[in-house]
Amino acid sequence: MGTAPLALSMGDPAGIGPELAVAARALAGERSLPPFFAVGSRQIFAAAAQARGADVPVFAVQSPAEAAARFGEGLPVIDIGEGIYAPGRPDDAGAALALASLARATALVREGRAAALVTGPIAKNLLARVGFDHPGQTEFVAAACGIAPECAVMMLAGPNLRVVPITVHVALAHVPQMLTTGLITTRSTIAATALAADFGLAHPRLAVAGLNPHAGEAGRMGHEDSGVIAPAVAALRAAGIDARGPLPADTMFHAAARATYDVAICMYHDQALIPIKLLDFDDGVNVTLGLPIVRTSPDHGTAFDIAGTGMARPGATIAALRMAAACAAHRHG
Amino acid sequence: MGTAPLALSMGDPAGIGPELAVAARALAGERSLPPFFAVGSRQIFAAAAQARGADVPVFAVQSPAEAAARFGEGLPVIDIGEGIYAPGRPDDAGAALALASLARATALVREGRAAALVTGPIAKNLLARVGFDHPGQTEFVAAACGIAPECAVMMLAGPNLRVVPITVHVALAHVPQMLTTGLITTRSTIAATALAADFGLAHPRLAVAGLNPHAGEAGRMGHEDSGVIAPAVAALRAAGIDARGPLPADTMFHAAARATYDVAICMYHDQALIPIKLLDFDDGVNVTLGLPIVRTSPDHGTAFDIAGTGMARPGATIAALRMAAACAAHRHG
Repeated sequence: MGTAPLALSMGDPAGIGPELAVAARALAGERSLPPFFAVGSRQIFAAAAQARGADVPVFAVQSPAEAAARFGEGLPVIDIGEGIYAPGRPDDAGAALALASLARATALVREGRAAALVTGPIAKNLLARVGFDHPGQTEFVAAACGIAPECAVMMLAGPNLRVVPITVHVALAHVPQMLTTGLITTRSTIAATALAADFGLAHPRLAVAGLNPHAGEAGRMGHEDSGVIAPAVAALRAAGIDARGPLPADTMFHAAARATYDVAICMYHDQALIPIKLLDFDDGVNVTLGLPIVRTSPDHGTAFDIAGTGMARPGATIAALRMAAACAAHRHG
Repeated sequence: MGTAPLALSMGDPAGIGPELAVAARALAGERSLPPFFAVGSRQIFAAAAQARGADVPVFAVQSPAEAAARFGEGLPVIDIGEGIYAPGRPDDAGAALALASLARATALVREGRAAALVTGPIAKNLLARVGFDHPGQTEFVAAACGIAPECAVMMLAGPNLRVVPITVHVALAHVPQMLTTGLITTRSTIAATALAADFGLAHPRLAVAGLNPHAGEAGRMGHEDSGVIAPAVAALRAAGIDARGPLPADTMFHAAARATYDVAICMYHDQALIPIKLLDFDDGVNVTLGLPIVRTSPDHGTAFDIAGTGMARPGATIAALRMAAACAAHRHG
């Protein structure tokens, strides 16, 4: 596994996925990227390279092994069919190609022919029109691996911070009732296990955020901190995990506070994403923890509005490739 | 008013308020602080100066005018009675002194004898035992000025960001039902008016955060963004205020985003306080907007645990004094 290349899915061909694959390949030497290959339409990657003015030869390969051997020549592509490159103008054919790319890339990693999966950005609502019945790529990959969705845990990681939101894409009004001691304990345990296995942190330190202002001030503002979150922290500690909390969320994220933990366990989307997007806007990586395979993704969307303009920056894609390789090395090395 | 000094209340004498008054005075020359005086027990400020090893003479004055004239000599104090300096060991006598200090300082500003009010940190639960029946100092000052509490708007301001939380110290589960179009419109209007009057921003730009992840994604995650917040933004714009939103909160706070607005209008405590405490932990100022007087406060608590140790840093107190003076100059100058 140590020498298998990484598999990068294309994402929606009308988004910034194809050009970022090319842009990342162009910087592979400078940024010491491990060998990787793209999965999708060779034609589309080639058109994206041309549109971006990138001097990166794009060529089809028959296998990951061939991709690894020929990575020095340019961007190897496992070609899954022809497609039209129309940045900013998504359609059903493109969505179908994105879905096929995701499925094929996932399969190659599950088969052990690629070391890790890096997924390009898709538009969920467009993929839903062509038969995609998952809330997002994370759940698709979890299902492909036979893992229950609640056990596939999203972590966002950047140079300055790692965060795990316990609840993600739900209305804020539903968050308090969705939070249970079991959910917090389960996802935090998966996070702790994965930080040890994939990130080389033998004894990861978890800082668990409260839900309410000042973590509820001993029950004066909401009962969840003392009634739901504190028992989860106690359960984690009883299991030997270095967890602290519930902590007031507003004082968890300045530099001195961040130095005291390896991951912030957050109760809801914006509690996690406000600090990481503030600190690591251009190079945040979405990592799925709890899977039998390593999967990362740049933490941004399709950006249809700037696709094809050359404005999209490859920092997050490069970070996702590097993190995928590092995690795979930790796990298998 | 331009030459009247600032009034600084003592805060709880067992907290870091007294020593920060002294520490700020010690840096008055270096940091170009305007003349100010403390209100409280001269004895306690003198003991705090000695404990901190600060070479700042502490002396009683009879009036703000005398304080302004003699500011060069050290820290002038409007002396309201004797007290025992026992850092870290709060008691009822100290709380009563803190309350008396707050009341006297507020009165001096209301009478026009001081240019602005800067309040030191108190412990609300301790003051409640000696007759304080307000949720915090903001509401006390509002009541003293005859302003309804919903019209006294808290803004936190630092070198990198200004935020106004529409709801503040309430359980997160209660936030969705507390948010109304009227409340958001009212508080945002007060914020816009105050930024013009007190901060010299003729046409302040307001960025209004959504409540739900991705500002609700067109109603897919919660109805509040489209049903409650968007109508408030429309009302603000109809009134000629430069307001945008609801915006996804997670992408509002990185540097490039912050450059596009003067204040972030946030829906709840941690949405506002996570980013400002991340960015401006040591020098955030709490400003009360909508009052007939200027009132600021360092954005931290009593810190009983480090009081008297010399660890407390005066950055936020200095910033609160400077901001109070600047606001008073804008308003009256």
